[in-house]
Amino acid sequence: MAIKTISVIGSGNLATHLVKALYNHHFTIKSIFSRNIHNAGMLAEKVNARPVSVIRELAPADLLIICTTDSAIAEISSQIISESLVVHTSGSTPVSVLNCHKNFGVLYPFQTFSKFAELDFSKVPLFVEANNANNLQRLKQVADAISGSVEELDSESRLKLHLSAVFACNFSNHMYTIAKDILQEANLPFSLLNHLIEETAYRAVNSGNPAKCQTGPAVRKNMNVLGNHQDLLAANPLWQKIYTFVSDSIMESEEKSHGTL
Amino acid sequence: MAIKTISVIGSGNLATHLVKALYNHHFTIKSIFSRNIHNAGMLAEKVNARPVSVIRELAPADLLIICTTDSAIAEISSQIISESLVVHTSGSTPVSVLNCHKNFGVLYPFQTFSKFAELDFSKVPLFVEANNANNLQRLKQVADAISGSVEELDSESRLKLHLSAVFACNFSNHMYTIAKDILQEANLPFSLLNHLIEETAYRAVNSGNPAKCQTGPAVRKNMNVLGNHQDLLAANPLWQKIYTFVSDSIMESEEKSHGTL
Repeated sequence: MAIKTISVIGSGNLATHLVKALYNHHFTIKSIFSRNIHNAGMLAEKVNARPVSVIRELAPADLLIICTTDSAIAEISSQIISESLVVHTSGSTPVSVLNCHKNFGVLYPFQTFSKFAELDFSKVPLFVEANNANNLQRLKQVADAISGSVEELDSESRLKLHLSAVFACNFSNHMYTIAKDILQEANLPFSLLNHLIEETAYRAVNSGNPAKCQTGPAVRKNMNVLGNHQDLLAANPLWQKIYTFVSDSIMESEEKSHGTL
Repeated sequence: MAIKTISVIGSGNLATHLVKALYNHHFTIKSIFSRNIHNAGMLAEKVNARPVSVIRELAPADLLIICTTDSAIAEISSQIISESLVVHTSGSTPVSVLNCHKNFGVLYPFQTFSKFAELDFSKVPLFVEANNANNLQRLKQVADAISGSVEELDSESRLKLHLSAVFACNFSNHMYTIAKDILQEANLPFSLLNHLIEETAYRAVNSGNPAKCQTGPAVRKNMNVLGNHQDLLAANPLWQKIYTFVSDSIMESEEKSHGTL
């Protein structure tokens, strides 16, 4: 049976964008849960739904979407008693966390969301998983309605996808943060790096092969420079460790790709 | 005495761009050295200079620019016997490596160079240092002629500037490489990350404050997700260490900026 009605647990950035996209594609949003009834009300008002702050007051619906922080999913799930299809939206949580239900799955949008920026949901890749072929089909229909890019992906691969984004985005951003702190020590502005940061991202994306774009003292195996940099980092052992292991990993990648081991 | 004539040691990417910019701004390029006379000849031809493959055959000039790999600077320097101003172009090599000369300094362009891409040298920030005020003045005149952004910077600050670029560019690029390898294990294309990579770089540059843009499980202190990711990395101890220490550093930065220690 095709999904027509949906209730949503959560009212954060992802819930907001997801609920609006579903509403705009003619799904009926029955109710929206948030522990803070004011937050639930703000979002519910926009999509003609009923706000609730107690799980058991959620209106029955064909699909229940748990759209909370990862650590809250298991506990929320245990409070839901329903034969509806119950899904979560987490990249790093296995589908099995919901296996106390008869019908369950995952609807993972691969994108970071900001409450403020407008977003074209049709361009957000969605990855789906479900406990059987029928539920997968029903979930795919919902996903296809709101996004132009829908793929099936199991829990292990989804965790890898999430981990790849942690390296490519969260960790690269922290490299910028360390760079800013180092510049500050020399009374130099972060804006000096603007061009290099944008150029590095542009080259990786446009080549499709960041390993081939690698520059710097590690890939050149310039041990003299590596030593000078490590000395400079002596006052910050954590940054020194990061410097050492990332440099080692760059050298290891280089050796693998050129077979010079 | 203002600098009018220049000889250059090296014929790589940086030497090529630098020599062309100097030639276009009416400096006389006397000779260009490369161990490979063919490479020296290719570049010399473009700027009406004499190619040489032996250091002592370099034509006398007001300024000698050592534009080689960092590790070759000391040895090249020891072969030069001249009262001319002798400078190198390295970010991570102290000016003192040239202190066997009477007149010496550094001309450091803060930019990565590709032999193929055209480059507007007037937009490349140049950082200068010299052994006395007179030489600094002479070097600044040369730098001002080819770039709109020239600053004095001592060797220690220059090393910090170089180190900041290693984190912001070389290391962020390696984070992309690790991400690509992880995706490959799940048979997923690197292009899935295109939007997130560009968005992360854009936000850091446009906010001027990457720490404020930090997202992901570490900054949310989601220890459950951190544990799942670490388990997934068990087969690659080097990546696991990078994951642990970068996550620790993100948490440490967050605590410092919010005073929640």
